[in-house]
Formats: sequence, structure tokens, C-alpha cells
Amino acid sequence: MFYTDGQLQYPVRVERPNPVFARALQQAIGGVEGEIRVAMQYMFQAFGARGPSKYRDMLLNTATEELGHIEMLATAVALNLENAPLSFQEEVSADPIGGAILNGVDMRQILSTGLAALPSDANGVPFDASHVYASGNLAADMYANVTAESSGRVLAVRLYNMTDDPGMKDMLSFLIARDTMHQQQWLAAIEDMGGEAMNLPIPNSFPQSQEAQEFSYAYFGHMTDGTIPQGRWSEGPSMDGKGTFSSQVSKPMGGKPSLAPARPDGGGQVQQTSKSGAGGLLGQIEGAIERNI
Amino acid sequence: MFYTDGQLQYPVRVERPNPVFARALQQAIGGVEGEIRVAMQYMFQAFGARGPSKYRDMLLNTATEELGHIEMLATAVALNLENAPLSFQEEVSADPIGGAILNGVDMRQILSTGLAALPSDANGVPFDASHVYASGNLAADMYANVTAESSGRVLAVRLYNMTDDPGMKDMLSFLIARDTMHQQQWLAAIEDMGGEAMNLPIPNSFPQSQEAQEFSYAYFGHMTDGTIPQGRWSEGPSMDGKGTFSSQVSKPMGGKPSLAPARPDGGGQVQQTSKSGAGGLLGQIEGAIERNI
Amino acid sequence: MFYTDGQLQYPVRVERPNPVFARALQQAIGGVEGEIRVAMQYMFQAFGARGPSKYRDMLLNTATEELGHIEMLATAVALNLENAPLSFQEEVSADPIGGAILNGVDMRQILSTGLAALPSDANGVPFDASHVYASGNLAADMYANVTAESSGRVLAVRLYNMTDDPGMKDMLSFLIARDTMHQQQWLAAIEDMGGEAMNLPIPNSFPQSQEAQEFSYAYFGHMTDGTIPQGRWSEGPSMDGKGTFSSQVSKPMGGKPSLAPARPDGGGQVQQTSKSGAGGLLGQIEGAIERNI
Amino acid sequence: MFYTDGQLQYPVRVERPNPVFARALQQAIGGVEGEIRVAMQYMFQAFGARGPSKYRDMLLNTATEELGHIEMLATAVALNLENAPLSFQEEVSADPIGGAILNGVDMRQILSTGLAALPSDANGVPFDASHVYASGNLAADMYANVTAESSGRVLAVRLYNMTDDPGMKDMLSFLIARDTMHQQQWLAAIEDMGGEAMNLPIPNSFPQSQEAQEFSYAYFGHMTDGTIPQGRWSEGPSMDGKGTFSSQVSKPMGGKPSLAPARPDGGGQVQQTSKSGAGGLLGQIEGAIERNI
Amino acid sequence: MFYTDGQLQYPVRVERPNPVFARALQQAIGGVEGEIRVAMQYMFQAFGARGPSKYRDMLLNTATEELGHIEMLATAVALNLENAPLSFQEEVSADPIGGAILNGVDMRQILSTGLAALPSDANGVPFDASHVYASGNLAADMYANVTAESSGRVLAVRLYNMTDDPGMKDMLSFLIARDTMHQQQWLAAIEDMGGEAMNLPIPNSFPQSQEAQEFSYAYFGHMTDGTIPQGRWSEGPSMDGKGTFSSQVSKPMGGKPSLAPARPDGGGQVQQTSKSGAGGLLGQIEGAIERNI
Amino acid sequence: MFYTDGQLQYPVRVERPNPVFARALQQAIGGVEGEIRVAMQYMFQAFGARGPSKYRDMLLNTATEELGHIEMLATAVALNLENAPLSFQEEVSADPIGGAILNGVDMRQILSTGLAALPSDANGVPFDASHVYASGNLAADMYANVTAESSGRVLAVRLYNMTDDPGMKDMLSFLIARDTMHQQQWLAAIEDMGGEAMNLPIPNSFPQSQEAQEFSYAYFGHMTDGTIPQGRWSEGPSMDGKGTFSSQVSKPMGGKPSLAPARPDGGGQVQQTSKSGAGGLLGQIEGAIERNI
Repeated sequence: MFYTDGQLQYPVRVERPNPVFARALQQAIGGVEGEIRVAMQYMFQAFGARGPSKYRDMLLNTATEELGHIEMLATAVALNLENAPLSFQEEVSADPIGGAILNGVDMRQILSTGLAALPSDANGVPFDASHVYASGNLAADMYANVTAESSGRVLAVRLYNMTDDPGMKDMLSFLIARDTMHQQQWLAAIEDMGGEAMNLPIPNSFPQSQEAQEFSYAYFGHMTDGTIPQGRWSEGPSMDGKGTFSSQVSKPMGGKPSLAPARPDGGGQVQQTSKSGAGGLLGQIEGAIERNI
Repeated sequence: MFYTDGQLQYPVRVERPNPVFARALQQAIGGVEGEIRVAMQYMFQAFGARGPSKYRDMLLNTATEELGHIEMLATAVALNLENAPLSFQEEVSADPIGGAILNGVDMRQILSTGLAALPSDANGVPFDASHVYASGNLAADMYANVTAESSGRVLAVRLYNMTDDPGMKDMLSFLIARDTMHQQQWLAAIEDMGGEAMNLPIPNSFPQSQEAQEFSYAYFGHMTDGTIPQGRWSEGPSMDGKGTFSSQVSKPMGGKPSLAPARPDGGGQVQQTSKSGAGGLLGQIEGAIERNI
Repeated sequence: MFYTDGQLQYPVRVERPNPVFARALQQAIGGVEGEIRVAMQYMFQAFGARGPSKYRDMLLNTATEELGHIEMLATAVALNLENAPLSFQEEVSADPIGGAILNGVDMRQILSTGLAALPSDANGVPFDASHVYASGNLAADMYANVTAESSGRVLAVRLYNMTDDPGMKDMLSFLIARDTMHQQQWLAAIEDMGGEAMNLPIPNSFPQSQEAQEFSYAYFGHMTDGTIPQGRWSEGPSMDGKGTFSSQVSKPMGGKPSLAPARPDGGGQVQQTSKSGAGGLLGQIEGAIERNI
Repeated sequence: MFYTDGQLQYPVRVERPNPVFARALQQAIGGVEGEIRVAMQYMFQAFGARGPSKYRDMLLNTATEELGHIEMLATAVALNLENAPLSFQEEVSADPIGGAILNGVDMRQILSTGLAALPSDANGVPFDASHVYASGNLAADMYANVTAESSGRVLAVRLYNMTDDPGMKDMLSFLIARDTMHQQQWLAAIEDMGGEAMNLPIPNSFPQSQEAQEFSYAYFGHMTDGTIPQGRWSEGPSMDGKGTFSSQVSKPMGGKPSLAPARPDGGGQVQQTSKSGAGGLLGQIEGAIERNI
Repeated sequence: MFYTDGQLQYPVRVERPNPVFARALQQAIGGVEGEIRVAMQYMFQAFGARGPSKYRDMLLNTATEELGHIEMLATAVALNLENAPLSFQEEVSADPIGGAILNGVDMRQILSTGLAALPSDANGVPFDASHVYASGNLAADMYANVTAESSGRVLAVRLYNMTDDPGMKDMLSFLIARDTMHQQQWLAAIEDMGGEAMNLPIPNSFPQSQEAQEFSYAYFGHMTDGTIPQGRWSEGPSMDGKGTFSSQVSKPMGGKPSLAPARPDGGGQVQQTSKSGAGGLLGQIEGAIERNI
Repeated sequence: MFYTDGQLQYPVRVERPNPVFARALQQAIGGVEGEIRVAMQYMFQAFGARGPSKYRDMLLNTATEELGHIEMLATAVALNLENAPLSFQEEVSADPIGGAILNGVDMRQILSTGLAALPSDANGVPFDASHVYASGNLAADMYANVTAESSGRVLAVRLYNMTDDPGMKDMLSFLIARDTMHQQQWLAAIEDMGGEAMNLPIPNSFPQSQEAQEFSYAYFGHMTDGTIPQGRWSEGPSMDGKGTFSSQVSKPMGGKPSLAPARPDGGGQVQQTSKSGAGGLLGQIEGAIERNI
């Protein structure tokens, strides 16, 4: 279970409220790169963790930290909205370039929340929990977490570069640092589990003898002219040390697929009930109707 | 632009059609771990790739391969549905345990597609392109791709273990092998870009001097009893070689947040228009109404 | 910010694991009546609260409690899945009525999570944060919370009635009790804010003199035969004490709406560019084309 | 079944078309506080109503009224778009502050509808019928309806305050009045059903002797410093007259949850197949692989 | 505005309630082929109709009819659920093949609605108003409506074939007939607007002289072996009488796309800031960092 | 399986990058009228096609072409973003009307993709594969495809009219021409299958003798004043030549629906457990509670 002290993990100050930046900040709350996602992701990974309990514990701590990041960013949004225009008139009187400000805000921050944050992204799309990756495989989850913190830090850096408000830059410098740590942390967890080679391919519990091993370390080219882009992925030992990279032009091995004709009572057209479809369509229709009656 | 030869990359055979397995296979088509996702993800990463063109090329080839995996799995679904019951009566006559089969199918495979695949997951939830991660940062995208192929291989292994149809096991052994390669491939791309240490923290274009570096390599504990789970993430050199892991109990540095009261014309309650809310509520309401009139 | 102790608020025991009940329990986690919704709803209401701080504090405490309910239910799902079949063969050997069990499970609990909970509802639809109601109006939010706890308790009661596992019944008896309290709590908050009459109509900050008051307390009948269902809503003093209920047959006061014809360059059909559309269609098309060239 | 007369319930006039306000109005059509939601919600509550028929009838009439509100607002959107710019050039020539107007419009009102309303909210997110609350419990539904009309009136007031177009203000003064009535109506229905005390806790058909009654009227504090926010919810008789409010610090009663290790064929990592995960990882992998072969 | 008489357009009888069929029927309510979709689609097409008013009127009447079809189907769902099991025990005692029935139901019809219909499809996915096609172009909308009624009748036929309940077959025979008419109706409207040739290509208000006419009537082949599937689409006069069909192998005319390198402050990797990416990566990183500081 | 040559089907040039137009172009990528939709729609129709193989082949070729249109449009978006502002300061210095440009962009094109396209629409709503119509009925699918290409060409025309960039106009003139062809192509396919009369009503495999034929060719009026809009749909031979259009006022044939009362253990209110709900509510509650205990 959880507790709070009602305080912010790090100071949140806004010197010059900017309602358009309030919209941008939404991405860090309810976007796929945002804090709701990581909080819930680490939480569900912890709640469903099977195996050594230390990983569950580690996940649960960081899930709990991320809840506080939602709080920080929601506060930042509200502070950026303190002076937002509530009407077209108010805006015009305050700003010679009219329309511009109200045009650019997240309308729902005015209409639906009364100048506060939404659990949505910068385009107003609500967070959707299908982005909570918790696969039941710890190594897969660690890479999912590295991904979340990488795109999260990319986002935080873009927000940092977008604003010149000193308070916002300070808050973001903290969140960027935490993303640095969390990228490290999940990679360290893979190391803690024995390292990349021991964990790959994921899941490592499936015997590779049962996969079609002639295709396990081959880069496939799909260019019509037969060229294949070369790089570390096309030659040399594989990253897991269990094979050697090669490359080849991809060839069709499976032939043309062929499905049975539609069944007469399956809701298709009569013409679909044979593979040819040729000849006597009207007769087919009549025949089909008679059979059904 | 793209081309096809109308053939399958690998043979797709079903010996004993199983409509419940057809439902399970949907996860590999339209699930977050599925083939539509990776095809579109690699495609959008390629289309938006900035920087050296070889990464764009590599991505585009694999995107093109994944399109063929959608085709294989859609064919597998249709073949598993060849004998599916279309009515409750048909089912009862064919199967002494009644209801069981029609109960367990994806109803839309009967009602909406006429015994074919949907671009949806095993629970019938349509694929949603918010899962197409293409961040504009190549390293972040490579980890996103490792994640996709890890959860994808975990899924393929679970499907392999679920069925004992030899045709399906054969097809899955191929897809599992390709997932092995693709996990390797994206990790190899990071190596190709100079390796993990050179690329971390992502984005590596942000000067770390601007982040709050005292928090960049510290694991934060949020347990009420002050204990902190220890592991590779809490001590030793960091994974990027740029710091040293430590751990500490997380402390609130930001105090209690405080928002301005609601504005009188902002759609809140009158009681919210002051911070105290104490005393003379009725007077407040009357006052507010008068001010507005 | 938040803390945890890694323990459950109330014991979660499952005596006879039932993977179909695991599916049903998902509704209480990721359904619109579920715990993710209330946790996030109270959290966002707290984070955006303007006005007296005690309401923010009250909301934050209960948000924190609800996080622990997600944890309890996620644990209950995982425990109900402990013996779930992973393959069709396993199932058949264990259960003479075959197929039935694997048919009825949430396939993603096997395929996507490795026998753990999802942040989705009982039909596998992921939680969507558009259900987080936080309007910036405290009274509106309190009713939203009463609603959440009412539908939440209805759901918990239905789950209680569905199972006869003693552990699950015990856990649900606790959650039902908490829902009882939370229904009370939000109604008490309205009382704390001065009671129903003082708070209605919501928002009470809008002067009723500006609304079309002849329609403010009238029940409108829309039956073609002119009958109007009578009840407490059609006569007697209104609930806010500010009017008297009446009822009347609804009449059209606004006439037929009329929009301008389509603009020639607006992407409509040429026939839509006049209100009549009569006569000389071909001429119209030619004329329009000439004008554009 | 339903009928229409093709006329508007109340006049809809726009004196100065404002395409940005057309975007704001979308929230009242397809937003979670909007008219599609209430129309469908009351409709589904009516269609599924069990018990005394007068409640079904009352719901059906108001559902029918709300359909007409969608019509009014859709008309208002179209009228606000009459002069909207269709191209960047048109805009620049018409408006010295350039870009501003086209920037701020709902692009789909131009691109997807040809200057008409969408069934979406002010951010362009389509209405999603998961917001149609119809629980099968009349009292729960009445509170859901109070909620809908409260957030609906808050929204209408914010729109009223945003515009100074006399026609729009007039239309909104009518909708605000109807929201006043509908808040009253659903509360009156609870009174009609015997009042709050008789209906609480919802559902009142569950014997409270079966809930964990020691927790039924206690406010739980989750602050780390042990403080508990006091108010009407923490002392005095409960709102249903069936208990007495108290408050207490929340304590963990359930201990640490513990799940079984991952099954060898469940798609986890080998390291997860024991609780310790310590020692001999490579041996574990080899052992697991052998067992599977 | 709208009216009702509280009666069903056509009788709805269920002789043998079948909760699994109740799930199937959901597709006809909240599925993409269902009644909510057509009701809202015709409504929004009417509300936004520009041009001759008779089309608006025709649309509005049929929209109103479709509202009654939602009512019929929602009633059919509730009647099919009258004897549905509410618990695992109840089910077992009633049915020797256990689990099967509760397994196969839409869990939310029990848990969320108390044995009534949801505005969702047969897989429990809520209706989403993005399926309401109302383009502002009458001819495009007529084809959208033919599509809706075609997939709608296909669905109704599949439901008819699935059940042998006489009441349900009778109700569906009515809905199938109405779908027949509605397919005809929308095609008749195109005829009423001057017929196919006059309306094609849609929109007919765009001068074809401005399109790249050499590609306007050519079928493009994308097979790697250069074959092109022949049919009515590859030769003979075009359907609009304005061209002649031909076919050709598709060739790339646009060359390789090339985007600018990533900007240094754009959140990419340093390696992306040049097109080559070759040489001196570490130097690049250092340089970039210095430039930023 | 699929192949690529890495080249664009048609040149994509942008002379004056316009980040607001980049937002508009998103509709043609990820909107319901966009290229992802048609590519996936034709693909799934092909993959599930039953009946004569030529239709499968024809669909597959065009699906493959559409993949290249996604590529073209994604490139167009990236090129329109080349000079987009990344910060508020940058924008102000470049543009005297400040805020306007950053206000109007799709924030996620900056924050989430680093100046590239998203698989989302012009409002930032991600593409959702429920729009992939593949019904298993070829004729229904052909009309769905005509619809897609009609709304697609309407959209492309609106985009063409919105911009005056010569490169963008050139690209759009190509896409408009392809939409012209594709409208023709799907109509030609219906002709190829025997023409409209032979294919209607869809599905033509259902014997019309089983539908309620008295309603199969009658337009229903739902106006309260009994008027019925007349047109081609209300008189004359039906479009399929199998009936004669008529019109009539719609009448209720089904009476008032009546559901059973709520079950005592179904989670409703006690008052719902009888049809009257009259008298002795408290007694009912007590009785119900006793029965349950």
C-alpha cells in the first residue's frame, strides 16, 4: 500500500506563465513518453513479478517515485495556466496579436479542468493503459523500461529547449537527471540478471533448438535490386555470442496462400462460393437461394 | 515504394483447424507485441530518419519484411477458422460438449470478417497506432525495437507452447527465429553507432552539465521503513561509465504546492474563490453573483 | 510525493484459483468502475484543486488509498491464475469438459502478461484516462466521486455474488466496506461545503439571472401522445429550494435550421453549391469548373 | 421508436462567426461532458431499466430531449464556421494577424466535414461510448446523471463566459437552464425512490452484515506524518444514518504478497523460475532447456 | 428536435434466452456495422448538410428510424440475458457442461449493466464516434451509407444464421429488410443527384484538368514479376465515361527521399546531426556539448 | 511478401515549409480518410479473400501501391517541418506575429518525433485499425473502398485548395488522380462481378424470401406531421430491379418493451426488484436483506 506527505519531490516554479507551454507539458504527463505511463508500467510489472523478490522491490520503489513526477508536472501545468485567457475579449485586451494565445491552448484545460492538468497528451488524447508494458518476462520488461526512459528523456530535453522560464528549466533539469538514472537502472538490472548474453534471446527459457535456426542470425534484404544495407548487423559475431551475423536476399518460401471458398451461409456473395467465380452467376444465385430455402 | 510477389515468406499450414487458437493468434497480428506494430514502427522510423542513410535503409528493409509476417499470420488465422461453427445448432451437432467452441471464439471473426483475421488483438481490441514509436532519436528507437522484438518473441513462444498443431509449430519456429535476429539486429545497430557508452544517456546531444547531476546516478528508495533494495543499480560504476551508482532515501525537496484560488468566472464553486473557504458562504455566493451581474 | 511499504492493505487469499474469475476481476482494476480510475481521478482532482486546502488533502489521502486497492486486485488476479492452462493439451488432460476453461480466459493474461493482471477491463479493453473526471469544480467532482463509488460498489457486490471462494469473498467484503465509506465521504464533503442547496445548481458561481429561468425547473415531455411521466421531478419545491417543479410538453421554439450552400472550393458536390439544386446540373458542374480554372 | 419535426428546440443564432469558438463548442457535443454522452446514457439506462416503469419513461423523455441538444450545438458549430478560411492565402488577405485563425481551428472541421460539426471533443478526440454509464442500478445511475449534468453545466458556463456573441449567449442561457433542471431532476428521482438514506449505500440490496463493517464509516489517513484531514467526513453521524464517521491512520493488514515463480514454459526468463534467482544461472538455463527438449 | 412513443418499431421476442447470443447481438448495437453508428452518421450528415434541403430531410428521417433499431436490439439483448447465470455455482447446477456458459458471456453484461445491453461491440469494445462519416460531400456520404448498410445486412444475415430462436429470426428478418431498403435508398439518392457519371469523380467540384490526368484511369501493377491482374478495371471505358481504363507496371518517379540532418537541439543523437555519421563520433559529441554550453 | 526500392512513387517537393500545413497533411496519413487506412484495408481484404483469386490479386496490388502513398505523405510532412520553431524564443525572433506558428503546430511533431510524421490525424488522434473494413463479402468491401477513395479524394482536394506551394500542389495532383482511378476501380470490380443488380441486396447469398419483404422497398417517414420527403427513393423501380419504391409513415408495431424486475442478487436497488416499486420500500429492503442472509 501507499503513503504520501503532500509535498513535491522537487521544487516547481513558474516565473512567466505560458498556457501554450502548459499544453506542451501535457505530453510529459499523459503522453506515451510520460509519467503516468511509467508509474503504471513499473507498478504492474511489480504487482505481477514472478521470481526473485528483489526485482519486484526495485520496481515498486521506482513506480512510487514516478507517481510524484505526475504530481510535479500537474502542478507545473496549473501554474503555467494561472493567467490564461478565459474569453476571446479578455485575450484581445491583453494582447495586441489577439487570437494567438487562446488559439494555441489546450481548450480542455480551460473547458474541462478549470485551468489544471489533464491525464492526456499534448494533443489532448487521453492516456491509454495499453501502453503499460508488463510482459511477465523481466528482461523484456527491462528493455521496455529503457525505452520508456529514453523517449522520456528525449521529450524532457525537447521541453527544456522549448522554454526559457528559469523555474521550468530547473524542474526539467531534475527530471532529465532522473531519466538518466532510470536508463542506467534498467540496464543495470539486466547486468544484475547475468548480463545481455545470458538473457538473450528473450525469453531465454525457450530452447533455441526448437527455432528455425538457419534464420536466427541472418539479416534479410527486401530491396528489388538485391542490395542489402551492411553494418554491424550483417557480419561478425552476434550480440549474444551464440551465432554469426550474415545477410541474404529474402526469398518467398511459402507459395501463394489459398483459402477455401466462402460458405453459402457465411454472409459472402454467391460469386465467392467457388474458386473460379466464372460462368452462370445468375444460376449460382438461384441455386444457392434454393438450397437455403 | 513497395512491391509484392503474392507469395508467403514461409509456409503456413494448419492440420487441425482450431478457432480458439485463431483468437489467440490475433495477438500476434494486432496486439501491442504484434506484426502490424513493428511493420508500422520500422516504417515510420525509416520515413522520418535524419542522419546517416544506412540506418534508414536498414529500417526500411525490415519494415518490409514485417509486412509479410502480417500476411503469414492473417493466413494462419483464416486457416484455423475453416471449420468454425457458424451457428449454435451446427456446433451442438458436431461437438458433444456444446457451447464451448462458439463461446470461446472471437465473435467478430465470424460476424465481421466471414472467417478471416482482424487487425485487432486476442481480446478484439483494434490496433492503435499510438504504439508506433518513432522518436526521431535513433538510439531511443533501437531500444524501442529491442523491446518490440522481445515482447514479440515472448508472445510467439507462448503461442508455440499453446498449440500442438505441427503446421503452426513450424510457422512459429520461423517467426521465433526472426525475432531472435531482430533482437540482435537492433542491439547491433547501437553497437554500429558507437556502442552503449557513447550513446547513453539518450539523447547524447544534451549536455549533462545542464542536468541536475547530483541525481543522475542515484537510486531512490521510497519505502516508509527506509530500506532500499540493493543490486547492480545501487553501487559500482554506472553502465555508461560516466558516474557511480549510489542509493539514498528519497526526500521531499519541493514543499507543498499551492495554486491560486479559482477565478470567479472560471466555472468553479464560489467556495473555491478564496483559499480559506471559511465563513460567510452564503454571503460569498451573493457577492459573487452581484459582481457578475 | 509518495511512499510504500510493500505490504497489502488487506489480506488477499485465493483458495481455489479460477482463471475465469481472474477475467471478471479485471473489471475492478481497469474498468470504468475500477480502481485505476478512482486512484487517478482523486489524484488529478487533488493536483488541480483550487480553494481551501483541506479538500485537496482529503482527496490526496483517498487517492493514495486507492493505489493500494489496485495492488490488492492485481494480486488477486495473479493468484487466480496460478493453475491456469497454458496449452490446449494441458487443459484437456486436466478437465473432462475440455476447451471450456481456456475458452473463457482473458487470452492476454496468458499471452501478454504471463499470468498476471492487465490495466484493462473484463473484456480486455485497456483503461482510458478520459474517465478521470476532474472538472475544477469541487461540487461537480464530489458527485463524480459518489458515482464512481456507487458503480464501484455495485461491481464489487456482483463479483462477491459470483464467487464462493472464501478468500475472495473476504477481500471483497473489505472493498465493499470501503466503497460504502467513500460514498459517504463525498456526500459528506458536499455537506462540509454548505450542503446541497448552497451548492446547487453547479456551478453556484454563475448568476441564475443569466440563465433562461423559465426553463430551469420544468420537466419536458417528449411523448408524441402528450403524456408526461409524473413524479417528484414534476411538482413540488425543487431540490435546491430555489424554484418549483412543473412539467410541460416540449415544443420547438427554434424553427428549421438553414446552413449556407457549400462553397465551390470546399470539397462538396457541385449540386450542393445552391440551396435548390434544381435544374442544369451539368451546367453547374461546367460553370464551377470554369470558375476554378 | 422515435420521431422528429425537423425544428430546433430553441433558436440558434450566430452574429459573428468565430471558427475558434466552433472548436470550443465541440466539447459540448462530443466531450465527456457533452450532449452525445447524455443522450446515449439516458437512452441505454431506459432501454435496460428493470423495476417500476415510471423511471424508464422519465429517462426516455429526457434522452429524447438531449438528442435535440446535439442538433442545436451541431447547428451552432456550422454557423460559426460559415466564414472560416479554407486556405492560408485567404486567411492572410482577410486578417492582418495572419496565421492565427487557421492555426487555431479544428482542422478536421475543414478537412473532414466541410465546415460542420464532428462527434468529437474540443481537441478532436472522437466520442467514445465507454462514457455511457448505465449500471442496471437506478440509484447509481441517478448519481451518474447528476454528475453528467453538473460537469455539463460547468462546461456550458465556461462557454458562455468565453464568447460575447449575443446569439451564442442566448442559446447557452437555455442549455444552462436545462442543465439546472436536469441536476434537480435526477436528485428528485432519488427522493422519489425514498430518499438518500433509504438508497445508501448503493446498492441497497446487499446486506451490510456481509461487508467488513469496521471499515464502513472510517476515513483512512495515508500521510506519513500520521495527520488526517478533518471535516464532516471524519466525525458525526454518517450521511445514511447507519453509522458514525471516524478517522484512523491506515495500516497494512495484508503482509507482502508472494506469487509463485514463473513456470518453465510460461515465457519468462529462466532466472524467474525460482524465488531466489541466486547462483548457477547458466546451469538453470541449460537445465530448463534440457527439460523442455 | 425529437419525440418518442415508447413503443418498439417491430416486435422483439425471445423464446429461449441465450446469453452467448446476447454477446453476438452487441455487434449490431455498438459494432462498426451497427445501429449506433448509422443513427449518428445519418444525424451528423443531416445536421451539417449544405445544399438542397430535401437531402437533409431524407437523412434526418432515416437517422430517426435507426434510433429505434438501437432500442429494438438493446431490448433483444436484455431478453436474451433474462436467465443468465450470475455465479459460477448457479451455472454448474443448471448445466452439466459447467463453465461453458459463463465463460462465453460478455462479462460486462453481468458486471457493468445488470443484464442489459452495452454501447459496445461483440468483443466489448465501446463504440467510437470516429466511425461517423459525414464528409460534407453528399455523394461521398451516400457511398459511406451504402457501405454501412451493406456491412450491416451482412452482419444481420450472419446473426440470423447463427440462431434458431423464432422470435430472434423474426426480428432479424425485419432488420434485414430495412437494410435492403437502405442500401437501395442511398443508391437512389445518387441517382436523384444526377446519377453516377455526373457525380464521379467525387468531389465533382474539382476541375479534373488540375489533377495529373495521365494517372487518372490507369490500374497500377506492383508485382515483382510484372504481371498485372486483368479485369473490368484494366480496360474499356471508365465507369464515369470520362476516360478509358488501362494498366501499367508502377515505376518510381520520385527518387530517394532525403531529409536534413537532425538539429543539434532537436533531441536526436549527435550521430544524426550529419548525413554521413562517419568518423569522430566522440569529437562530435564533445563539440555539440560545447556549442550548447 | 513485400519488397521495396526505397524510392518515392512520385516526386515530393516543398518550396516553402509550413509547419501548420504539416499538421493538416497528417489527416491524409493517419485520418479515417487517409493512406494507412486504405493500405491496411486492401491488405486485410486481400489476406482474407475467399472466392475467385483475381480479386485477391487486384486488392493486393493496390494495397501495395497505398503503402507508397504513406511514404510520400510522411516525407511531405517532414519537409514541411524543416524550419519549424523548436522554442518560443526562436519563433518570436523569426516572426513578428509571435506565438502564432508554434501555437498552430502539432506539438507531437516537435516533441514526439523530432520533426517527422505521426501515424495520427490532423488533431493528433492515432490511427485506429477498427477503420479497416474487411467484411468477407466482396461487394460490401468494394463499396467500402469506393467510400474510402471518395472521402480520400475530398480530403486531397481540400488540402490542394489550402496550400499554394507548387511542390505540394504537384504531389497532391498525383494523389487526386490516383483517387480518381481507385474510385473507378472498385466500381469496375462490382461490374466485373456481374453489376449492381446482380450483387444487390448485399449479401446476395441470403434468400430474400426470408426477409420481411413488405418492408424491403419502403421509405419510412418519421416526421410528426406525417410529411415524407420525396425523391428517387420513394417511387419508381428499385435500384436492384427487384421491387418498387414506396413511402409510408412509420408506425410502432412492437408495443412497449417490458423487462423482468431486477434479481435480488443482481446488484440493483431493492426498489427495482418488483415492477411496481410501490409501497413498503423499507419492508422490501429488510425482506431482501433477510432473504440474502
